[in-house]
Amino acid sequence: MPVSLGELAVRFGCELRGDPDLPIERVATLAGADPGALAFIANPKFRAQLATTRAGAVIVDAATADVARRPVLVAENPYATYARIAALLHPPPVREPGVHPAAYVAPLARIDGSAHVGAHASIGGGTRIGARAVIGAGCVIEEDCEIADDVRLVARVVICRGTRIGARTIVQPGAVIGGDGFGFAPQRGAWVKVPQVGGVTIGADVEIGSNTTIDRGAIEDTVIEDGVKLDNQIQIGHNVRIGAHSALAGCVGVSGSVTIGKRCQLGGAVGVAGHLTICDDVAVTGYSLVSGSITEPGVYSSGMPAIPAQAWRRSVARLHRLDRLTGRVAALERQAGKEQDD
Amino acid sequence: MPVSLGELAVRFGCELRGDPDLPIERVATLAGADPGALAFIANPKFRAQLATTRAGAVIVDAATADVARRPVLVAENPYATYARIAALLHPPPVREPGVHPAAYVAPLARIDGSAHVGAHASIGGGTRIGARAVIGAGCVIEEDCEIADDVRLVARVVICRGTRIGARTIVQPGAVIGGDGFGFAPQRGAWVKVPQVGGVTIGADVEIGSNTTIDRGAIEDTVIEDGVKLDNQIQIGHNVRIGAHSALAGCVGVSGSVTIGKRCQLGGAVGVAGHLTICDDVAVTGYSLVSGSITEPGVYSSGMPAIPAQAWRRSVARLHRLDRLTGRVAALERQAGKEQDD
Amino acid sequence: MPVSLGELAVRFGCELRGDPDLPIERVATLAGADPGALAFIANPKFRAQLATTRAGAVIVDAATADVARRPVLVAENPYATYARIAALLHPPPVREPGVHPAAYVAPLARIDGSAHVGAHASIGGGTRIGARAVIGAGCVIEEDCEIADDVRLVARVVICRGTRIGARTIVQPGAVIGGDGFGFAPQRGAWVKVPQVGGVTIGADVEIGSNTTIDRGAIEDTVIEDGVKLDNQIQIGHNVRIGAHSALAGCVGVSGSVTIGKRCQLGGAVGVAGHLTICDDVAVTGYSLVSGSITEPGVYSSGMPAIPAQAWRRSVARLHRLDRLTGRVAALERQAGKEQDD
Repeated sequence: MPVSLGELAVRFGCELRGDPDLPIERVATLAGADPGALAFIANPKFRAQLATTRAGAVIVDAATADVARRPVLVAENPYATYARIAALLHPPPVREPGVHPAAYVAPLARIDGSAHVGAHASIGGGTRIGARAVIGAGCVIEEDCEIADDVRLVARVVICRGTRIGARTIVQPGAVIGGDGFGFAPQRGAWVKVPQVGGVTIGADVEIGSNTTIDRGAIEDTVIEDGVKLDNQIQIGHNVRIGAHSALAGCVGVSGSVTIGKRCQLGGAVGVAGHLTICDDVAVTGYSLVSGSITEPGVYSSGMPAIPAQAWRRSVARLHRLDRLTGRVAALERQAGKEQDD
Repeated sequence: MPVSLGELAVRFGCELRGDPDLPIERVATLAGADPGALAFIANPKFRAQLATTRAGAVIVDAATADVARRPVLVAENPYATYARIAALLHPPPVREPGVHPAAYVAPLARIDGSAHVGAHASIGGGTRIGARAVIGAGCVIEEDCEIADDVRLVARVVICRGTRIGARTIVQPGAVIGGDGFGFAPQRGAWVKVPQVGGVTIGADVEIGSNTTIDRGAIEDTVIEDGVKLDNQIQIGHNVRIGAHSALAGCVGVSGSVTIGKRCQLGGAVGVAGHLTICDDVAVTGYSLVSGSITEPGVYSSGMPAIPAQAWRRSVARLHRLDRLTGRVAALERQAGKEQDD
Repeated sequence: MPVSLGELAVRFGCELRGDPDLPIERVATLAGADPGALAFIANPKFRAQLATTRAGAVIVDAATADVARRPVLVAENPYATYARIAALLHPPPVREPGVHPAAYVAPLARIDGSAHVGAHASIGGGTRIGARAVIGAGCVIEEDCEIADDVRLVARVVICRGTRIGARTIVQPGAVIGGDGFGFAPQRGAWVKVPQVGGVTIGADVEIGSNTTIDRGAIEDTVIEDGVKLDNQIQIGHNVRIGAHSALAGCVGVSGSVTIGKRCQLGGAVGVAGHLTICDDVAVTGYSLVSGSITEPGVYSSGMPAIPAQAWRRSVARLHRLDRLTGRVAALERQAGKEQDD
């Protein structure tokens, strides 16, 4: 159902330059838009596309608005405003309240009447599902979990016993929350399993990506604070704490007992070694290994960019001969009567 | 049911040297074969095993055939011929046409009468399942998907709303196709979710590995072209396009808005940073990070081979003292009256 | 139900110093314990907490016992003893014997009467489930599998056809065992699928983490020996063999046809290239790439620690100019009349 440009301006607090009656049906890219679509520019480098886009209107910042020469919604943060308008125009698929006849709900579970429980979902005894929560098809929620209001488990998510999930949190398909952490005591060349008796506590407004795994604590809880965003295929070990509003990109691995501060950003496939602490406001670029605690905000890296394979092999060989090269330099320094500084 | 060597020669276009009536029941390795088994040699270095194998016959190329002294099927490409014969002798498990009584099919879904829908599968409204398709146990297919003829979703696959999958594509268990991409707009120290309104389009003859995840597009579709092969535990971000017949090994991570050309090969755990382009016919060796666009076909690397830990620590320390070493060389050059070139 | 300290001492072979009637209800950390809880010290550096913990008793080694001044259980290996006592005090959730009415069991499957089959699980024909085995909600076990006594598949695990799993093995949610290996024969710029006709054999007392994937063999079996521990999100390729009691941390990727020895330890996200062998008793630190066979026990590394991004970029640039630096040193050596040794 289309919404008029004027209504969008009012609801999302934008200045409107253009026809308030223009009907907007969807969002689109500048290049792919048609006259029923709304696009956005968050980066001035796309301004050139304003001349050619067929979009009915564009969300822009004030500086871009002055050069736009077409219908615009002027916003302080065009990308965030775009996100909110897209959520209005493209709501998630409707999931009707009620428990699907092919779901299984244990006798002592409490499901809010406005919640949806999909086909082949199963809900354990003692678990509570909040108002308007959506438990998608094939989800397994074990015993004694607390699923707050407006949580959305898209499909085939596993929530192990005793997990708590805060309001409005979204979990993409295939994620596993509360599986046993990796704890084994060595004894005589073999391993004794250490029962993982802690739980998992997940805050409000968290997003957890497809096939991401979050282990239950060994003794105390693994904790994901409010507003944390976890991409797909992430592994979070036992007893980890991730501070509010941190964002971790796909394939990140966080070892056990790590504490990550607030507003951190870890790029794709970053690895974090066990038992260390990363302070607030740290960014780590993709494919880096964090092997020691980080105590100062800033950007950290160790990802090695690919180059042609032959040149790479030569660089690796040179790296491992640096001891020898350093020795040659020292010999030259001795011969030249220089003091050595290494 | 055994097939005679002669029939195999005829069906697969091989020259036969040996008894056409020999019954072949299975494929095997040269070392593990018995007289009812057919083995193959794709690499001359295994020729020595021809003297000792108990295999009833061996698939070989012409050069090997001349030295084989035993029953052979001569093929231009022995490995590909082996693959086709193995498919005949070892077909996938039979899945009877029809919808399992424990499956759930929404009223407006259309399932071809020759398709199989397994136990506890659920099919959303508006979804179409083609002829002879196999939807294994526990699969979830949301609304408005197009699953073409002869597609095989092995088990417990999730296909989110609006996804299109081309003919004969195989999806291994646990894969998730069409989960939300990782899109969040920063605003005042927190994140606003950007609705992911694009879809996923997957071509024909694609294979998708166990627990691999492919995100839906932010606005337009994520696209996997015909014949692409994706191994297990791969993460494909939103708006990625992967060109026809490219093959990605396990644990690869492809960030959002990446375009990969045709016939590329990415080794295990390769990471590709966001918004870049890799041209056709590029190979990247395992455990490398692609952090910039690649415009020339060839082989690229940055995977660092493990060595004894003590030597490795020394190399890392030397690497981070290269500035100092370079300075020492420059000082020697100055003293020697040389012009500096760094 | 609490257990007395004296009974714990007797059952687990510890020396008791303290009141044998003290009731112990749970395990806890030293910092989080209350008087009903039992804590442990496996590392002398935590001894200082003995002065402040509220724990009813603490498991310690003999040396710590002498300085403890509070109730202790003295054990040779406190961590292993802790693990065993925690298992007594915190048993896994009870799963009643019997097949859930919402499960599907094929006619020719054989389920031991003491086994549990959860809601929406499906068991294929010819599969045998042993005594006291637990097949959690949403699990899919295909045809002709052997699941031994006391195996525990927590939830939503997929076991593909013909897989064998040894006694007491635990599989966390989302794991996929026996999906097709990644085998394709190149032919004229495309790929021909190589049927994966081998299986998977998993020993006794193995643990397999959440969303870990283990591929079936191409021709012969993939083998995981007794007592192996695999963390979450691990990928094991086809025809791999992992020796008894080896432990692999999260996100490890093992390429096809690799043989790993006994008692090896691979850190998080380690990658192992295909067709190589790692001998017994090898440790590889996290985020390393094993690209050649390892024939000597020891510790191996290639994980590059993250440093501030600017310094890192400089180190990478210097690394790729090492050829030039080496040439400059050689020129200085020539000028100084030195023999070159590189």
